[in-house]
Amino acid sequence: MAGVQGSTLAIAVSQAGGLGSLPCAILGPDQIQQELKAITAATSRPYNVNFFVHRQPDPEPDRVAGWQDLLAPYYEELGVERTSVAAGPARLAFDHDAADVLEAFKPPVVSFHFGLPSSQLMARVKGWGSKIISSATTVDEARYLEANGVDAVIAQGLEAGGHRGMFLTADLNTQTGTFALVRQIAAAVKIPVIAAGGIADSRGAFAAMVLGASGVQVGTAYLLCPEAATSKVHRAALKSVAARVTAVTNVFTGRPARAIVNRLIREIGPMSAAAPAFPLAAAAVLPLRSKAEGLGSGDFTSMWAGQSAPLCREWNAAELTQDFLDAKVTRGS
Amino acid sequence: MAGVQGSTLAIAVSQAGGLGSLPCAILGPDQIQQELKAITAATSRPYNVNFFVHRQPDPEPDRVAGWQDLLAPYYEELGVERTSVAAGPARLAFDHDAADVLEAFKPPVVSFHFGLPSSQLMARVKGWGSKIISSATTVDEARYLEANGVDAVIAQGLEAGGHRGMFLTADLNTQTGTFALVRQIAAAVKIPVIAAGGIADSRGAFAAMVLGASGVQVGTAYLLCPEAATSKVHRAALKSVAARVTAVTNVFTGRPARAIVNRLIREIGPMSAAAPAFPLAAAAVLPLRSKAEGLGSGDFTSMWAGQSAPLCREWNAAELTQDFLDAKVTRGS
Repeated sequence: MAGVQGSTLAIAVSQAGGLGSLPCAILGPDQIQQELKAITAATSRPYNVNFFVHRQPDPEPDRVAGWQDLLAPYYEELGVERTSVAAGPARLAFDHDAADVLEAFKPPVVSFHFGLPSSQLMARVKGWGSKIISSATTVDEARYLEANGVDAVIAQGLEAGGHRGMFLTADLNTQTGTFALVRQIAAAVKIPVIAAGGIADSRGAFAAMVLGASGVQVGTAYLLCPEAATSKVHRAALKSVAARVTAVTNVFTGRPARAIVNRLIREIGPMSAAAPAFPLAAAAVLPLRSKAEGLGSGDFTSMWAGQSAPLCREWNAAELTQDFLDAKVTRGS
Repeated sequence: MAGVQGSTLAIAVSQAGGLGSLPCAILGPDQIQQELKAITAATSRPYNVNFFVHRQPDPEPDRVAGWQDLLAPYYEELGVERTSVAAGPARLAFDHDAADVLEAFKPPVVSFHFGLPSSQLMARVKGWGSKIISSATTVDEARYLEANGVDAVIAQGLEAGGHRGMFLTADLNTQTGTFALVRQIAAAVKIPVIAAGGIADSRGAFAAMVLGASGVQVGTAYLLCPEAATSKVHRAALKSVAARVTAVTNVFTGRPARAIVNRLIREIGPMSAAAPAFPLAAAAVLPLRSKAEGLGSGDFTSMWAGQSAPLCREWNAAELTQDFLDAKVTRGS
């Protein structure tokens, strides 16, 4: 999950025998290079780099202004000047600049979210030998990804924290739980399926493999690891009863994503028709988030979390990874 | 699921080694008696009877009138007289009249939905030796049920078809997928956990047991069995691409329930703030359903289905039950 981890967690997971992942959605090329240097200096094991591949929307000045109007009472309450609502760190889509950086490192695995990049970019990544994976939230998306050359497909169940990877549909009713999705995708494609969503321990990983997965992708379960960059307010929420109630919301970025329900989601969400297109909604929320976090409050923070958030453990990443790897042993026995 | 099955399916499942279940939510005492006579005449194996235990709401004449206003264009389109919108077969809550009938049969298992009946009714059912089970949609509900004397708890994941059993909360954001729910409930209670939601075959059943369940409750997977009373339009939808998209909707009864998305859900739902309290919303929709079904259309039919509906098989109930029972063998091996 972008924003809650960097190379430190990825290194720890890879060193422990998992496939550590570096989220690049909010990193520029220089930062990506820096992080990849850190990873490759620290481990010779396989790792993954993850990119968003959304199309940047046309500017929507009227919608953005309307969105700021909706948030105006919060600016006033927190003493944030509306004029200070500048574009924050935007979510960046994978492009040739990012590919230029990757080319020098040839990461073993590159994963995409929201579909796939252009065929030119796909060809570049494949050309230097990276395996490509991407998320499917429906059977149709899994078939699309298989037909377009991915090496494995992530079946992202509705339990999953963070952004829904949906790219062939905008209808949330098509989004199914991990239990239903993994089984159906495994029956529909020939490539390996990686289960994601609600998997918090070795039993979850084993169950996913029984349903037809060849592996699992885990995000939320690592959020309390000391190696994660999870913020203070996010950690506190994960350890509280708040973690029991998450929602798929578009109020933080403009796209549906699962987060712990907090004040902003409760008061203007979870799904707001007023939110500008992804990622344009994000900039207007950021100053509220910064100000509130400074006051110790997560009221305006996108605290991404899946529905198994209450099962988060404060283990270090190596211990946690070993627990997941034990599922393989169980399976083989 | 009430409305799609009677004693015929229950008998077939019990005879095959499963725990056949008779839904009683839309049956009066005489009909319950008749069905129990049929079951006990046909099988000596254990069976279950299922009841709703909602509190009947106060009449809401204004809301009901408003609801009929909302549906008025459909009455006009289908040529249904609004004056003919009488109370249809209401969902009945478990009461002493029903208990009087049960007492003569002492069913091995009685299951409840929407919580538990009064302590007097609980005592009666326990008094004649029935095991009692009920659905939990959250960890809190599971703990409540355990504290109030159930013998086992059904963990009803969000994938499940039909009514959400939620009774301590009305917040749909608390409703989690089967994967997340089973694991968390199994960790929270000492009584056996029965997993429900998205389980369509022996692999699903096995995976649920890996997550901590002792058994599974399966509804949707049986809807295409010849022994089910599933309507023609419902069967057709289950066999079509329509089965891929379900939604939790309150437009059919007033309470959230998962059904295949059809015209009524699309146009006034899935969740309508105008719907009267459960089960008052149902009566106004019924004449539309009858008329439309007569024309071969499921536009107004509550086609209950879980998110694994695309995996439904047209097997007979004995074959299907055997497939689920194979999960036990796999587990033990």
